[in-house]
Amino acid sequence: MAFANSVLPKGGGKSPSPGRLASVYSEVQTDRLHHPLPLPSVLKGPFKLLDGPPSSAAGNPDEIAKLFPNMFGQPSAKLVPTGSVPADLPQGLKIGVVLSGGQAPGGHNVISGVFDYLQERARRSTLYGFKGGPAGIMKCKYVELTPEFIYPYRNQGGFDMICSGRDKIETPEQFKQAEETAMKLDLDGLLVIGGDDSNTNACLLAENFRQKNMKTRVIGCPKTIDGDLKCKEVPASFGFDTACKIYSEMIGNVMTDARSTGKYYHFVRLMGRAASHITLECALQTHPNIAIIGEEVAAKKQTLKNVTDYITDIICKRAKLGYNYGVILIPEGLIDFIPEVQQLIAELNEILAHDVVDKEGLWKKKLQQQSQLLFEFLPQAIQEQLLLERDPHGNVQVAKIETEKMLISMVETELEKRKSEGTYAGHFKGQSHFFGYEGRCGLPTNFDAAYCYALGYAAGALLHSGKTGLISSVGNLDAPIDEWTVGGTALTSLMDVERRHGKFKPVIKKAMVELEGAPFRKFASMRDEWALNNRYISPGPIQFIGPGSNNVNHTLLLELGAQA
Amino acid sequence: MAFANSVLPKGGGKSPSPGRLASVYSEVQTDRLHHPLPLPSVLKGPFKLLDGPPSSAAGNPDEIAKLFPNMFGQPSAKLVPTGSVPADLPQGLKIGVVLSGGQAPGGHNVISGVFDYLQERARRSTLYGFKGGPAGIMKCKYVELTPEFIYPYRNQGGFDMICSGRDKIETPEQFKQAEETAMKLDLDGLLVIGGDDSNTNACLLAENFRQKNMKTRVIGCPKTIDGDLKCKEVPASFGFDTACKIYSEMIGNVMTDARSTGKYYHFVRLMGRAASHITLECALQTHPNIAIIGEEVAAKKQTLKNVTDYITDIICKRAKLGYNYGVILIPEGLIDFIPEVQQLIAELNEILAHDVVDKEGLWKKKLQQQSQLLFEFLPQAIQEQLLLERDPHGNVQVAKIETEKMLISMVETELEKRKSEGTYAGHFKGQSHFFGYEGRCGLPTNFDAAYCYALGYAAGALLHSGKTGLISSVGNLDAPIDEWTVGGTALTSLMDVERRHGKFKPVIKKAMVELEGAPFRKFASMRDEWALNNRYISPGPIQFIGPGSNNVNHTLLLELGAQA
Repeated sequence: MAFANSVLPKGGGKSPSPGRLASVYSEVQTDRLHHPLPLPSVLKGPFKLLDGPPSSAAGNPDEIAKLFPNMFGQPSAKLVPTGSVPADLPQGLKIGVVLSGGQAPGGHNVISGVFDYLQERARRSTLYGFKGGPAGIMKCKYVELTPEFIYPYRNQGGFDMICSGRDKIETPEQFKQAEETAMKLDLDGLLVIGGDDSNTNACLLAENFRQKNMKTRVIGCPKTIDGDLKCKEVPASFGFDTACKIYSEMIGNVMTDARSTGKYYHFVRLMGRAASHITLECALQTHPNIAIIGEEVAAKKQTLKNVTDYITDIICKRAKLGYNYGVILIPEGLIDFIPEVQQLIAELNEILAHDVVDKEGLWKKKLQQQSQLLFEFLPQAIQEQLLLERDPHGNVQVAKIETEKMLISMVETELEKRKSEGTYAGHFKGQSHFFGYEGRCGLPTNFDAAYCYALGYAAGALLHSGKTGLISSVGNLDAPIDEWTVGGTALTSLMDVERRHGKFKPVIKKAMVELEGAPFRKFASMRDEWALNNRYISPGPIQFIGPGSNNVNHTLLLELGAQA
Repeated sequence: MAFANSVLPKGGGKSPSPGRLASVYSEVQTDRLHHPLPLPSVLKGPFKLLDGPPSSAAGNPDEIAKLFPNMFGQPSAKLVPTGSVPADLPQGLKIGVVLSGGQAPGGHNVISGVFDYLQERARRSTLYGFKGGPAGIMKCKYVELTPEFIYPYRNQGGFDMICSGRDKIETPEQFKQAEETAMKLDLDGLLVIGGDDSNTNACLLAENFRQKNMKTRVIGCPKTIDGDLKCKEVPASFGFDTACKIYSEMIGNVMTDARSTGKYYHFVRLMGRAASHITLECALQTHPNIAIIGEEVAAKKQTLKNVTDYITDIICKRAKLGYNYGVILIPEGLIDFIPEVQQLIAELNEILAHDVVDKEGLWKKKLQQQSQLLFEFLPQAIQEQLLLERDPHGNVQVAKIETEKMLISMVETELEKRKSEGTYAGHFKGQSHFFGYEGRCGLPTNFDAAYCYALGYAAGALLHSGKTGLISSVGNLDAPIDEWTVGGTALTSLMDVERRHGKFKPVIKKAMVELEGAPFRKFASMRDEWALNNRYISPGPIQFIGPGSNNVNHTLLLELGAQA
């Protein structure tokens, strides 16, 4: 049942990474190797690039213009079919590719896409894979990608072909290192596959190379399972579709378990710290009794007590209906959305840095009243965690708080209170879950596999045409693949500035869950129904063949529908 | 994308359970409804039952004979094709079915199987589903199962068609209640779907009904994801296949993540308290760097320090090879296999019941020396948990210990020691996971779907033929379904006695991982290779169509191969 030999290089190329060489492939993995990757029709024949009107910025265009004198205002480009291939396109390109930040299913297909573009349309080209993320660029650590090297990674999860990293190219010395690498390898172009920060970094690199009159162009590619890198022209970041479907499979199973057992409330924390897209998408896929959306909590300035009461109220109503079970989804970053928690943490960091935490609790008097109340409201285990576990800078480790366990504990306390008041007569048992790492490296869905391949192929086309400072963008994603649109969007057009240490820094603003957007509105219109009745859906395991295998996620469909 | 209407009853039947009525089905769920359930060829045509030789017991046959004067010695029965249906088989049977204990994928198909048997071969029969487990028998809470009622549950996960429960029929009053229900409903037979305890209980019921000269026969069915109810004639319990494949999908994803990120050791605790079959099967499917098998730990009388050292040694060796990441599988019940831990718990329970735990720690002197050393070896958080969290009887709550987190903490301490001694220079970050509830209620694999349907259909045949005190058994499972063998095995032949409160109690011994068995031997022969090299396999999500969709799990294949 294992097909080790089929993934070994056929010889001729350099040795693949030790990881995959050692791998034995499952039947499903082997089958995925051969899964066809159809291109949008515009990428099948000859095409040319059409420039749009000059672009601006998402905010503070004047500051963006100052930060990116060469890139700002660039038009976005659209690929359109043409009669014949332009004669002046160069061959023998040297291109680098880098994976930046956390894993997302489909990254290997982006690389396959740009590789196949070069093979098919820019003969005698070379593709270098920088190893371990942006650090690989700075240290000039790379591997030359060959068909034999790339083949075993086609349609496979993970980033292990060249691995990733979280370093940034920021200081003048680091930019210098990147220049040296670009010159050493005689790079015509660089493809940066990453999230908002990495794409901002890609644009800074593009600006820098252009300023230095270097030939190296830089194109970005939208990656993150969190789904928070998107805009009108870039309707989705890759990996979100697969990750949400993996989490939804598990949530659906837990729902069936909850309904069968009839005695547990499952509190499921889902990856996604900055935005709650994953929680929202999983809610739309599975219909939980409760899903907390951080952006709504923030917009309504809710307190932890508000969130606890909201959950507890529904549990009490359900108990009256005879349901002492349920499923509750919580975004990983929930407490980052609650202003009072941020305030408490800030005060704690200050106090812990300067004062002794006495056992009698006199130190608590130094907290402002609201923070004092909140601290007393927290379960004892969380109080202790906040006081005891600190990072190397002495700061409270918010990220380590297991929000789902904290909520279970607070809900328990509130229910006991209500029981003693006679307003609750049910029984409550909480079960905690965290779904995170399981979703970042799954085999990409058919959607992510095709989307990534098109993104990579398009990036090849953009680099080949001499474009720089654009992000590869594939649109019309709710239509058949044939009809997908392909182009590049000016990275500066996605940017705004933030003031940090007295200076303006360019940022691609994270796309948060829009409370006026179609996905949230659909959720909001259905959640009361889901809360009390059990409208659970079990999506089941991702299928690569047959029913549902080519479905697109709800968020994307609703957002595209809303735009139409 | 949702097909609510297709699962609603077509009218005529009683209302399905509120759960599924409210459900909206995913495309995969809907598709599974229509998945064909082929029967073994012996069940397709006319068949008759052939009795084997008289049976004995797994141990202490004299005591078993005393406990089961009517059942003991019964032959097992085998179904064989025959020319025509025996003319004397009754029609219009009244049969009850009950789900007992924890969820396992496929339970609904057992019920579909017995239902279809009655529809096809015992016209005008009635099937009653007892609700909420054995309590439903005692309280005579039931629902009449109709085609419309059953249809939406075909090939679906969960036990929510009639739900399950953990009550037992034990006292004379409870047996009396069961008799009353059997008489009230005029039951010809009862099918008990459960684990080792529930099947023991089924045999006691069978004995009791026979003793009272009642017509009600009782047949058991082997259910448990833990895989610890099996013997030569009953080669597998249902649900194990699906659960292990769900866990292995997640483990495979985490492995790809570990290899891509290069900086985490993932400690994965897997459900399965009494036996380590799940951990062993998942290891065979995914090739982790380390898998701890409880039965081996017990056989070698290992201490917690031994286990910690074993893990730490491999981490150190891997660090020298440049690998600061890995995946480690741990059975949920690990600490139950470690004698010294059991001893410590027993002493703690005694001390905590009678003495004050003083802050200075003088109470510790009451521990025996070995227990004192072990207690000091435990991470502080675990020490506190042992002292603070007690169950209603004041006992230490061993089940609440998160073994994976405990091991991470102990390995960390040991690595720090080795770092200071200069024998380890790597970096270590542990990530903990518990995979449990996600696997109990998934959509059954093609194997479990077909196996359960055959088990249920066979149970119908056994009941129809007047058999009692047997467990439905389907064999030859590594052959095509057509060639599966079908029969019933005497439940008393699986039994031994245990002495409890001065009395002999019958028990079906849990099937533990055999250290001389083929699955463990295969694992043992490969684990050193897996430890240092990364032979990870990612099985991917369960597929219902196409490659791998009809694969059987490794444990079953190896065990059947070894028997041949």
